[in-house]
Amino acid sequence: MRVAVLGAGTVGSQVIRLLQESADDFAARAGAPIELVGIGVSSIEKEREPWIDRSLLTTDLAGLTTSAQIVIELIGGIDPARDLVLSALNAGATVVTGNKALLASHGPELFEAAAASGADLYYEAAVAGAVPVVYALRESLAGDTVTRVLGIVNGTTNYILDEMATKGLAFESALADAQRLGFAEADPTADVDGHDAAAKAALLASLAFHTRVAIEDVDTEGIRSVTAEDIELAESAGYTLKLLAIADRLAGGVSVRVSPTLVPHAHPLAAVRGSFNAVVVEAEAADRLMFYGRGAGGAPTASAVLSDVVAAASHKVRGGNAPRESAYAALPVLGPEDALTAQQIRLRVSDEPGVLATVAGAFAAHGISIESVRQLAAENGDAALSIVTHVARAAALAATVSDLEAAASVREVVSVLPVESA
Amino acid sequence: MRVAVLGAGTVGSQVIRLLQESADDFAARAGAPIELVGIGVSSIEKEREPWIDRSLLTTDLAGLTTSAQIVIELIGGIDPARDLVLSALNAGATVVTGNKALLASHGPELFEAAAASGADLYYEAAVAGAVPVVYALRESLAGDTVTRVLGIVNGTTNYILDEMATKGLAFESALADAQRLGFAEADPTADVDGHDAAAKAALLASLAFHTRVAIEDVDTEGIRSVTAEDIELAESAGYTLKLLAIADRLAGGVSVRVSPTLVPHAHPLAAVRGSFNAVVVEAEAADRLMFYGRGAGGAPTASAVLSDVVAAASHKVRGGNAPRESAYAALPVLGPEDALTAQQIRLRVSDEPGVLATVAGAFAAHGISIESVRQLAAENGDAALSIVTHVARAAALAATVSDLEAAASVREVVSVLPVESA
Repeated sequence: MRVAVLGAGTVGSQVIRLLQESADDFAARAGAPIELVGIGVSSIEKEREPWIDRSLLTTDLAGLTTSAQIVIELIGGIDPARDLVLSALNAGATVVTGNKALLASHGPELFEAAAASGADLYYEAAVAGAVPVVYALRESLAGDTVTRVLGIVNGTTNYILDEMATKGLAFESALADAQRLGFAEADPTADVDGHDAAAKAALLASLAFHTRVAIEDVDTEGIRSVTAEDIELAESAGYTLKLLAIADRLAGGVSVRVSPTLVPHAHPLAAVRGSFNAVVVEAEAADRLMFYGRGAGGAPTASAVLSDVVAAASHKVRGGNAPRESAYAALPVLGPEDALTAQQIRLRVSDEPGVLATVAGAFAAHGISIESVRQLAAENGDAALSIVTHVARAAALAATVSDLEAAASVREVVSVLPVESA
Repeated sequence: MRVAVLGAGTVGSQVIRLLQESADDFAARAGAPIELVGIGVSSIEKEREPWIDRSLLTTDLAGLTTSAQIVIELIGGIDPARDLVLSALNAGATVVTGNKALLASHGPELFEAAAASGADLYYEAAVAGAVPVVYALRESLAGDTVTRVLGIVNGTTNYILDEMATKGLAFESALADAQRLGFAEADPTADVDGHDAAAKAALLASLAFHTRVAIEDVDTEGIRSVTAEDIELAESAGYTLKLLAIADRLAGGVSVRVSPTLVPHAHPLAAVRGSFNAVVVEAEAADRLMFYGRGAGGAPTASAVLSDVVAAASHKVRGGNAPRESAYAALPVLGPEDALTAQQIRLRVSDEPGVLATVAGAFAAHGISIESVRQLAAENGDAALSIVTHVARAAALAATVSDLEAAASVREVVSVLPVESA
């Protein structure tokens, strides 16, 4: 089985190492030897890991792509990854990729190219690193109806929120620490603004609901506006603040979002620390499942890539195809206004009789029922309230917040955060 | 795709319900309609769930088996399940089963029959119910080298230990409660003596290490001898007591055991409560993964069965086979004496000078180093010690315990329990 690796960075170099070290195991599992025929790179001269056979290096990525039966795309980004993946699929080669940005922005085009030529496209490594949640949704839950997927799918933001919680740091300090330690990139936008999580949310929702969901369909909010006070108050109320990707199958369609969310301490996601990832899947028959592991890093991501390679090789040797991407359900994708969630609203209000009645009236006017009201420490003579609602439509909540902002006795709507139940 | 269900009990009736309710979804995913052609039962007259079409019932299980392309075996036990499964496989039908006892005692015979006729054998439901750990080990980790599998795979014992811990109950009381509530069977032997967990441990080890491991190879200890005091002392020392199935890949071969084990509170398995199951997989590249969910119950187990059915149908429609059982690695299976683990030993000793030196000397004589010694509350003038060792060979630990039992200053070796690290 002729395999080409495009890209020899953190993940690519680990893939190459493991292909060499475990060659006999992979051959036994796949039913045929897996031969590395070339490594596509942008520079031949650059220093490489010692196990990389320099005679396999080439800068002719397009040529390499057409000479392999399985192409492992690990260069990332859209250009030239898109063209290379398309030409491999058009030629009938199997493609294994960890490129979530490419899938989230050009997924339909790639899946159609694969279907047209009968080629397979695998991407376990694109969501939650070593955690085999793509397999789980494509295969293990094929006999069930998934109602919900929610997960911690970005290790950088999970690490930053953890540091803020345990050390009481402000967002900017925790980000600077994470950058110094290599847990966050110099340009942290993709992570901290939630774009990376949104790409994964779109992939998870597409698989879970057999419906095409694009990254543009994901209502996305990152963690830049999270304050140390948000986290401190959350902890004191029994919650951990996590950046969650959430995909819900509602009566009217599919709702997908990424948002900082209050997770009760008893919820299995609350205990997911540092750079680990975890995805909870709720299904009608299976009830709640959780998949947990390392969401990034060279070796863990390489593990996911190579599982796809072994599966791909096995299918080529023994016949059959990977499970097809199916969008047969084609459920409507709802806008952010249709999301259903409980929310915590923090308010600064004037400390005077009747203010609670005004506030409660604003919620009631939009049909939102209140689960709890907590009075927080007062500031400068104002009162502070934390209100947790029952599950409500996002549009109703937004209208309520708008009314509260206009109310004379409300000084400020300090924060609005969705709340999960245990 | 003609499907027969053998057995219409708790799981079988849910499988039948979901086959009917989700028929369109399953057809779309499998590529062909899945038609239920018959339900094999021992009594036609017995009362059934309302959704069961009585015209499909038959007591001719052998005849039904030969008329289907996919046979779902949910009658349990060895006889007549073994004959039915063998005849289905010999006829080239795919078999989906949740029968761990059958697989653990007759696995090699069944896998060989499947290989000989080119039939497929699926058994996701046999290990940890809805938790897709069989898929994970067969497919998602095919590109990695698994070094260790450890899990909570028996919900009954997890529930009993939980009740003992939270209510301070003795084993017998907690068992009686579990029986009253339907969480334990009238004859609880298979659960509380660890046989059920041992069957699953053998399956997990076989998959993880590509080596045939039989239930007889599993060193098995149940929870009958666990006392409320064991649990109380464990909690005070930062551990939760869990019945774990553990499979290790050691330098000399594979070591598999089931045993009550002290799990540190920070370990992801410590938080698995009640009847939930969870399996941790440690692999060279992926590092630690965890899979968590419902380990039993009609609907969750049916979810796993139906995922196998959809995969089986999809393979029959689109070509290809399930991943073959492979025992290519054929690693040696080690005896209990070769297990490597840290242990906690509780001793009652005479309260006199020099006793700690005697005790420490017994460990040193067998090359076992001590991680910690804790003095517990004294009883009747004796001293009580709790000693935690570093990882050591089981044979050396057994020899040490034997020496301690013979030592004049040691009144009693109260308990010996393996200890996991976080």
